Amino acid sequence: MSKTILIVYAHPEPTSLTRRFVTETVQILERQGQTVLQSDLYGMGWKATFDEHDFPNRINNDRLGFIQESQHAYATHQQTQDVAAEQDKLLAADAVIFHFPLWWFGMPAILKGWIDRVYAYGFAYGYKDEGNRYRYGDGILKGKRALLSVMVGGPAEDYSPRGINGPLEELLFPITHGALFFPGMDVLPTHAVYGTGKLSKVSVAKELAAWRLRLENLFNESSIPFRRQNGGEYQQNILADHIAMGKEGLTIHIDH
Amino acid sequence: MSKTILIVYAHPEPTSLTRRFVTETVQILERQGQTVLQSDLYGMGWKATFDEHDFPNRINNDRLGFIQESQHAYATHQQTQDVAAEQDKLLAADAVIFHFPLWWFGMPAILKGWIDRVYAYGFAYGYKDEGNRYRYGDGILKGKRALLSVMVGGPAEDYSPRGINGPLEELLFPITHGALFFPGMDVLPTHAVYGTGKLSKVSVAKELAAWRLRLENLFNESSIPFRRQNGGEYQQNILADHIAMGKEGLTIHIDH
Repeated sequence: MSKTILIVYAHPEPTSLTRRFVTETVQILERQGQTVLQSDLYGMGWKATFDEHDFPNRINNDRLGFIQESQHAYATHQQTQDVAAEQDKLLAADAVIFHFPLWWFGMPAILKGWIDRVYAYGFAYGYKDEGNRYRYGDGILKGKRALLSVMVGGPAEDYSPRGINGPLEELLFPITHGALFFPGMDVLPTHAVYGTGKLSKVSVAKELAAWRLRLENLFNESSIPFRRQNGGEYQQNILADHIAMGKEGLTIHIDH
Repeated sequence: MSKTILIVYAHPEPTSLTRRFVTETVQILERQGQTVLQSDLYGMGWKATFDEHDFPNRINNDRLGFIQESQHAYATHQQTQDVAAEQDKLLAADAVIFHFPLWWFGMPAILKGWIDRVYAYGFAYGYKDEGNRYRYGDGILKGKRALLSVMVGGPAEDYSPRGINGPLEELLFPITHGALFFPGMDVLPTHAVYGTGKLSKVSVAKELAAWRLRLENLFNESSIPFRRQNGGEYQQNILADHIAMGKEGLTIHIDH
């Protein structure tokens, strides 16, 4: 059965490696017969900054409270058109692929601004107006798949388990766990290309081949086994003592 | 002796808790006789998105390569005025304090865009055109202090060592280690206020008092003991086997 895949990407240069991967993704998925939606953030002139212009009809004109205004705008269908359109794409998608260069160990600002603005109260958090009840494995995007395709300037060693930058997957935890698993998506292991400044033509071809394999298994691959908030392993949002006993930190939230 | 402190902040609402803290910071530091510089990102209309407009005189007009253009613009003094002004403030500062709300486990996009744009090649990376030689404890901002003041909507428990969001200091590692320690700053432990949506007047007063204590010790407090790249503990950017033996992950880069 045909699937719908949303590609969100953040690089303005058409000949960049990020965009070569985007082109490849579109071609492969369309050849598979899938429906491809695209959010070319630079091309769209996406507004990165979350501010008062996101709330044309305020519930409180004296004081800008983001959560209150987000809740009001979402619930009363008064969001800006660009934000509502991205939410519609997310709802239509069976999987979401993010293509971006790693800038200072995170997303380019334009992509962070996509998260900040599209992730409204009532949508990505405060789902069904039930506070944190639906979160981390439950939520409006439950069952959809998410995959980061990240272009990294530095060498793989620097991001290895004992590399000086820290392991890439831990650096990206605020995104994979905090932004994608949070509203319910199943997040696949990150796909990274390292040393992007110095890749030969042969290396680029190899990297594209490796990416095609990931795409072919987009709906078969196992996702990162993040622990579900409502799966019985947390007691008042703290991991139960008998799970990952005596351990702390980001990685205890993955069921290895 | 009088010091210079740069305050970078990211909230548009003057009555927000973030801005109350900013006001407090300015007052306390000025009362101490320090020189205070401010970067009010929303107030300045800071451009969040790093794009072709950052390079009015390109070295290559056919293809936008961020690293090459950043290197060229910085080296030839052709950066945009707003970026150059922020770099000057950083160079003038003895300490930098960042005030921002935690949005999706990271900085608001406008602040990420400050990092993306101000952190030029030759300045924050590629210092002295020596690749990664000056990094993590060495660099153009060496010896300056940095401190994050973060407003967090959720409760402290969710960010505790076994809390479901992950420990706050690990979620912020890409900023503290990756963006602040990287160009040489000594980073103090993050100052967080939790449950910001529900604070009583009494709680706000207590939180401001706790913050004043941090400010009074800004130049006395011990910084996070991140391991220095050039301190002899890394071999080709991998932590030496005998340090934090058998361990992996972000926290091994801190000398506990």
